[in-house]
Amino acid sequence: MGSLPTESLSVEEHQQQQVEMDDTSRTERARWLLNSPDPPSIWHELAGSIREAFFPRNKLSSSSRVKQTWRRSAFSFLRGLFPILNWGRNYKASKFKSDLMAGLTLASLSIPQSIGYANLAKLDPQYGLYTSVIPPLIYALMGSSREIAIGPVAVVSMLLSALMQNVQDPAADPVAYRKLVFTVTFFAGVFQSVFGLFRLGFLVDFLSHAAIVGFMAGAAIVIGLQQLKGLLGISHFTNKTDVVSVLGSVFSSLHHSLHNLTIPSLLCDFLAVLVSSEFRPRLFLPYLPLNCKEAIAVGRSFASIKGYHLDGNKEMVAMGFMNIAGSLTSCYVATGSFSRTAVNFSAGCQTVVSNIVMAITVLLSLELFTSLLYYTPIAILASIILSALPGLIDINEAINIYKVDKLDFLACIGAFLGVLFASVEIGLLAAVTISFAKILLNAVRPGIELQGRLPRTDTYGDISQFPMAIKTPGILTIRINSALFCFANANFIRERIMRWVTEEQDELEETTKRTIQAVIIDMSNLMNIDTSGILVLEELHKKLASNGIELVMASPRWQVIHKLKSAKLLDRIGKGCVYLSVAEAMEACLASKFAALSNC
Amino acid sequence: MGSLPTESLSVEEHQQQQVEMDDTSRTERARWLLNSPDPPSIWHELAGSIREAFFPRNKLSSSSRVKQTWRRSAFSFLRGLFPILNWGRNYKASKFKSDLMAGLTLASLSIPQSIGYANLAKLDPQYGLYTSVIPPLIYALMGSSREIAIGPVAVVSMLLSALMQNVQDPAADPVAYRKLVFTVTFFAGVFQSVFGLFRLGFLVDFLSHAAIVGFMAGAAIVIGLQQLKGLLGISHFTNKTDVVSVLGSVFSSLHHSLHNLTIPSLLCDFLAVLVSSEFRPRLFLPYLPLNCKEAIAVGRSFASIKGYHLDGNKEMVAMGFMNIAGSLTSCYVATGSFSRTAVNFSAGCQTVVSNIVMAITVLLSLELFTSLLYYTPIAILASIILSALPGLIDINEAINIYKVDKLDFLACIGAFLGVLFASVEIGLLAAVTISFAKILLNAVRPGIELQGRLPRTDTYGDISQFPMAIKTPGILTIRINSALFCFANANFIRERIMRWVTEEQDELEETTKRTIQAVIIDMSNLMNIDTSGILVLEELHKKLASNGIELVMASPRWQVIHKLKSAKLLDRIGKGCVYLSVAEAMEACLASKFAALSNC
Repeated sequence: MGSLPTESLSVEEHQQQQVEMDDTSRTERARWLLNSPDPPSIWHELAGSIREAFFPRNKLSSSSRVKQTWRRSAFSFLRGLFPILNWGRNYKASKFKSDLMAGLTLASLSIPQSIGYANLAKLDPQYGLYTSVIPPLIYALMGSSREIAIGPVAVVSMLLSALMQNVQDPAADPVAYRKLVFTVTFFAGVFQSVFGLFRLGFLVDFLSHAAIVGFMAGAAIVIGLQQLKGLLGISHFTNKTDVVSVLGSVFSSLHHSLHNLTIPSLLCDFLAVLVSSEFRPRLFLPYLPLNCKEAIAVGRSFASIKGYHLDGNKEMVAMGFMNIAGSLTSCYVATGSFSRTAVNFSAGCQTVVSNIVMAITVLLSLELFTSLLYYTPIAILASIILSALPGLIDINEAINIYKVDKLDFLACIGAFLGVLFASVEIGLLAAVTISFAKILLNAVRPGIELQGRLPRTDTYGDISQFPMAIKTPGILTIRINSALFCFANANFIRERIMRWVTEEQDELEETTKRTIQAVIIDMSNLMNIDTSGILVLEELHKKLASNGIELVMASPRWQVIHKLKSAKLLDRIGKGCVYLSVAEAMEACLASKFAALSNC
Repeated sequence: MGSLPTESLSVEEHQQQQVEMDDTSRTERARWLLNSPDPPSIWHELAGSIREAFFPRNKLSSSSRVKQTWRRSAFSFLRGLFPILNWGRNYKASKFKSDLMAGLTLASLSIPQSIGYANLAKLDPQYGLYTSVIPPLIYALMGSSREIAIGPVAVVSMLLSALMQNVQDPAADPVAYRKLVFTVTFFAGVFQSVFGLFRLGFLVDFLSHAAIVGFMAGAAIVIGLQQLKGLLGISHFTNKTDVVSVLGSVFSSLHHSLHNLTIPSLLCDFLAVLVSSEFRPRLFLPYLPLNCKEAIAVGRSFASIKGYHLDGNKEMVAMGFMNIAGSLTSCYVATGSFSRTAVNFSAGCQTVVSNIVMAITVLLSLELFTSLLYYTPIAILASIILSALPGLIDINEAINIYKVDKLDFLACIGAFLGVLFASVEIGLLAAVTISFAKILLNAVRPGIELQGRLPRTDTYGDISQFPMAIKTPGILTIRINSALFCFANANFIRERIMRWVTEEQDELEETTKRTIQAVIIDMSNLMNIDTSGILVLEELHKKLASNGIELVMASPRWQVIHKLKSAKLLDRIGKGCVYLSVAEAMEACLASKFAALSNC
């Protein structure tokens, strides 16, 4: 037919043609949605994520320009594994001067802390010092952070002794206990390297930031209280980590030494045992995620100050190897220390060479002053440990968390109280449980909202969020505000929609004697729908249809449209009820409304 | 200044003014988003949902026109509680004729089934018949479904005996067992009414449709196998419900009767005991959700055929009261039977009067033929039960579920195998666990997608879903495809975004020697963000900024924008980076790009 000359048409005909054209293009655009290719199936996605985990897409191999010889690609692989090959070539004397100063500062802090933390881990002091030598050297070869200070840290030391003394009493057989600790260090290293190599670093993400803040604060207080043993010179001290046991021990010792009264001290002990439950599952590696996550977070936060990128998975590999190497050379678990990293940073370190300087200094001191260091008074060790603890308690961050997210704060407090009053495991468990309960709650929270058009746009928004939003009489626009339309919320959402429809109908009848024409359900937020959801949708359609109301679906996502198609729901409801956006659905509804009116 | 006359401006000035106006209105619209009122806090929402649960908004009380006297509102309350007062006034003889026929048909089916199901519940036959008399009469007064057939059902009877015989052995002390069953019935009724009255019906929604399909099929097979006892006349039969135990019993009995060999039968028993674990938590009410949910689903599906509305919570109240009344008159748990409801519907019932007719017929038969009914051969009872079972196994629906949703199918199979090979509780537990694991998986699935503009629209879509989508060079549009940006997926999403940015940068440099100007993150799908997510977002901003790339956020939802504001992130990133929609963000980016180009 070609294009008709517009001049030959009357204005009305022209308008008519325009409306038809709009209709056609709208239908055509809806067809894009309906005929979109199938989304990747669950098997496909599974295979994809495994492939991605094992064979991460390599930037160099994907760009075809760079023709690499075998030797070159091997070298680039080595450079990836050992970043020192990259920056080592440009290393200058001026940088070394800064690193030397930073390294010496670091060593002056590391030596007493390592001895103190070894004490916390119930190991002899030299093992703490060893841990400040070998792991930093390995990290210097493999790690990419420039500021991180590697060595033993307070929380991990405490966790290690708290968990391991359930398996082997350090007082009864120190050699067996030591062997156990090295074995655990070895396996922690293996897990870290495997997770890192297979790019499974995200698996350690099951502790939220809030939970870690709470956990750290609780651990700091517990560690601090345990130092009372050293400070007060108490000989019979509890092996438990919770506040009640520790304070019970302290009071009982005080009573004992003051009065030698047995009944109050017995009562005190009894209370302590009563309150702290005996439930301690023998977890082997609960501190692994904490350990990795904190170290990577420490490295990352300083890296972001200097504006360079840190690959979490690569860091995990480096830390894994350093712990494996450490476990073979009598070191226990090392990681990045927040307080010492901060000192390293302020002392002006340029590269990880400061860690090498520190390690060599510690090694020299081990050779020269071991006998002196060995006799550091326990009370001094206790105060060294105590001085490092306040940095672990971040009250400001806790206040921030409270302000931003009440449920996150609950996870934070749960972890804090769990560590404080029960045990390390209970604290971790509380944090993880609350965090995941929060996800569940958010996912199935049956939120729906009434939408209105924002003035001078095609965008629709919640009428409570945007007071200026305009509702279209006779057409309800409802957005489902949850990621899933599933068994857990489908019925609730259906009831809520039906109630709104009834209310709107009543109001409309009261004011204009008209009825609702259509309900547009904005599905843009729905990531997925399950069979229960599809059943409810069909029911909703039937119920609305029996009241003469059209059910229109706007912007269903890929998975949703696929499910609706495979459940044959669109065949039953009619494919004309799906539109690309709320605005297009609204246009279509208004068009059919005017058509109906002009037919009258 | 007033409006300047357009004629006095040159074309360029006019364009310039237009661009500025666009800019202004875009900023103004972004301000709508930034200045939107705070979303209801978590306390507010909690209070709201409690208020809604306890004082559901009454349609009549909200409309001020209808001035109701006290007497009138009391009557409307009564009519709400007893729907019979509504439809009873219009009840006609013609309707009664249909109901009489349907009721008699129903009774002919109910009498043998009630006796059989009482046998399944390990009760004497008369209790099954009582359950077909009192509860239907109470339901007739209070229920709103017209087609539902009330009485004992197979699955609930089996569940009851499977769970109760752990507490009290029916063979050892039938009177105590019977009292226990009536007590359980009473409490089931109380829970149902309380849930219904407080509109907490959604609490029973934790079993998905798929799980129920699997559970029902498993239960049907287990019930069927148990009938082998009656059919084969085996005297020593297992009390367990799993397939292995039951088949073990059957084979052992067969062996026993055939050979009187003890070793194989002992072996068989031993195997049965070994395989079926002894783990049976003493749950009192696990069948409550199933019971309620199925009954309401049955009523609802038939109601939707006839096109009337059924309030789930009201139905729960009616069923609760009928079970309370039943427990006081020697009935056990009654609910809506799917098979008999279907018969009632096809027999042409008009109202719930068919239930009354059925109840009276059963009552008469109880009076007249008890002695005869009492001696119904067990084998016949077994075959009556068997005949009702195939309806519970819905293979087509299972195939449908497999086609639509693989993970739903996993829940279905889990429930099926759990019931079949372990126990009723394990089956339920498996179903609930898989269902919730699926929700978790979906919520934190770290999906992100690259978007492009759909031709001739302002809508942006996934470039893999819409092959016709157009990418804008130099500006990456990325949508986060999960409901939460939280500790569990934030790091993963950050890594993925950074990788895409690097890839795009490489490609862009290769082809046009230009660089990426901006990354637009479409947040429309994010329902919420936690403190970990906010940290990651800030890090992302810093990292992109250090590469000279702008981070722009499009259409963050109410909760998200509120969290970003209260975490002061917007103050740090700059409020100019938030736009109402992707289209507006894109316009702003392009405008600033052109401004930068024209400044060069």
